[in-house]
Amino acid sequence: MSQVAPDANPARQQLARLFSPIEKELVRVERRLRRELRSEYSRIDDLVRHAFRMGGKRLRPALVLLAAKAVGEVNRSHIVLSTVVEMIHTATLIHDDVLDEAELRRYEPTANARWDNEVSVLLGDYLFTHSFYLASTLGSTFACRTIGRTTNIVCEGELRQTRASGDLTIGEDEYFRIIDAKTAELCACCCQLGAHYAGASSEVETALADYGRQLGIAFQIADDLLDLVGDEVTVGKSLGTDLEKCKPTLPLIRLLSQVPGDSRGEVSALLGDGESSRQALAQRLAQSGAIDYARDKALQHARAARDRLTVLPDSLARETLDRLTHFVVAREL
Amino acid sequence: MSQVAPDANPARQQLARLFSPIEKELVRVERRLRRELRSEYSRIDDLVRHAFRMGGKRLRPALVLLAAKAVGEVNRSHIVLSTVVEMIHTATLIHDDVLDEAELRRYEPTANARWDNEVSVLLGDYLFTHSFYLASTLGSTFACRTIGRTTNIVCEGELRQTRASGDLTIGEDEYFRIIDAKTAELCACCCQLGAHYAGASSEVETALADYGRQLGIAFQIADDLLDLVGDEVTVGKSLGTDLEKCKPTLPLIRLLSQVPGDSRGEVSALLGDGESSRQALAQRLAQSGAIDYARDKALQHARAARDRLTVLPDSLARETLDRLTHFVVAREL
Repeated sequence: MSQVAPDANPARQQLARLFSPIEKELVRVERRLRRELRSEYSRIDDLVRHAFRMGGKRLRPALVLLAAKAVGEVNRSHIVLSTVVEMIHTATLIHDDVLDEAELRRYEPTANARWDNEVSVLLGDYLFTHSFYLASTLGSTFACRTIGRTTNIVCEGELRQTRASGDLTIGEDEYFRIIDAKTAELCACCCQLGAHYAGASSEVETALADYGRQLGIAFQIADDLLDLVGDEVTVGKSLGTDLEKCKPTLPLIRLLSQVPGDSRGEVSALLGDGESSRQALAQRLAQSGAIDYARDKALQHARAARDRLTVLPDSLARETLDRLTHFVVAREL
Repeated sequence: MSQVAPDANPARQQLARLFSPIEKELVRVERRLRRELRSEYSRIDDLVRHAFRMGGKRLRPALVLLAAKAVGEVNRSHIVLSTVVEMIHTATLIHDDVLDEAELRRYEPTANARWDNEVSVLLGDYLFTHSFYLASTLGSTFACRTIGRTTNIVCEGELRQTRASGDLTIGEDEYFRIIDAKTAELCACCCQLGAHYAGASSEVETALADYGRQLGIAFQIADDLLDLVGDEVTVGKSLGTDLEKCKPTLPLIRLLSQVPGDSRGEVSALLGDGESSRQALAQRLAQSGAIDYARDKALQHARAARDRLTVLPDSLARETLDRLTHFVVAREL
């Protein structure tokens, strides 16, 4: 499936090259993250450093910085905001891990499982609250309001997704509303803040927020596709977990909407029913055209994101934002 | 042990009487909580309503309101701030439940255990982020900064406590630093915000913040004592869990500091080693005077809290704050 050499984190290497126009600024963000999360208590310091070693791809800080550069200059506020959004993203990753660890433990219980869970929940909370404090050190309540509202929508999206797990009556509309909330909202927020704090007009601020939202939707569809058709070595994480958890993602929703009513039971019976059933389901998803349908949707949203960039003057930052729309949907190739 | 009739939640009934001077304002807070946490998604609405049915004693909103009334008038900001601090407290309670449920499940695994954990982590996050958003709707960044810093200190305190569990070398100083962070900080913040948004002078604001801090310390020592010597029917929750979890609280720290070095191993061997060993330990804590020592410390901090009220003019609110210092340490009697 993958045409990328299966070396360590090829996606990260590609992203690092893509982000070279903001390399210096990303270094400042990295330094700020380290400074903010230094604790005088060595046992907490260890935890936080661990969180950042396993941290994200720095996509969200990059969106803040690129939006700022596409509009004007990167300033001190952008470094703070980039640090804030990365902390928020890391907090959500850590809390996701609590949930995932819980499942892994069903098969292999570890002695210190409870201790890990406890620390992970509290560490995520520590990052959330620190990010809010940091946002409040900027001059006005604009960043606090925007970030507060956004993170609340992200959590609501995650809650809705959790409660939708196993519900095969979920339609395409609900799927899009969930990924809009849990993924696209924070990307939109990053671009909006980057533009706002670079002095963008409200027209440009809105266009960049829309860019972020469409990019986020394309990214999440592609991510869900990766879970079905990706290569574990390339992607670097366990795949196939969505089917295992009966999480309704776009290809499955599409397949279920296409099969006649009386065959739906047959499809859903394949879910969560062992490895061989899941393989049969994956094959059915591919043959029915549901995979291609989802890939096409991802491409449509990537294109919609690109279209929003036309309000911006030509610049290396704008070009990078453009290339990013190709990157997020090409990941599974 | 208890001189209070073992009917449903006697402590809550006492508190309700104590809070009668702010009864109307507490009703407004209750209404605001309900309004803020209404979700258009019925499945999330259910969860949030459940969180508030099992919610706290509304001690923290009461501190905001009483501090405001002791200084001047309760205004719209105080209702918002009371709502914010109760949401934060509920979020920490829900995340504590995740950790506690995890342990309960060790003895009695339930089918939907994982689902509950997932929902609890996300629901706590949802409340945290909503509270930050709500704080940002006030005019300035003051509330955001104060609340952001405070909640971060609370989380750091909880993390330090978690990491201190089972560490019997923890001294009295570290115990006080931990309860100062995990409990007293939010009480101080409530009183400070109440005073600040009622237009208090900085002297009065500081005095009320100190009152809240001392009250919080007294409250936490008394709460830790309840876990050792309280009556389950009166208190309405499982007790004895601190010893079971090898959590070093003040009486145990005191006992360990008093016994000769070569007897410490003998004391610590009694921890987490079944019900009969724990009973032997409880007896030893009482006989050594360690329980009385801790009770005396709680009374000292309650007195220190009262002393800070002298900057205020006489009022029913000031009298209520005074009576509250007696209430928090009398709970175990």
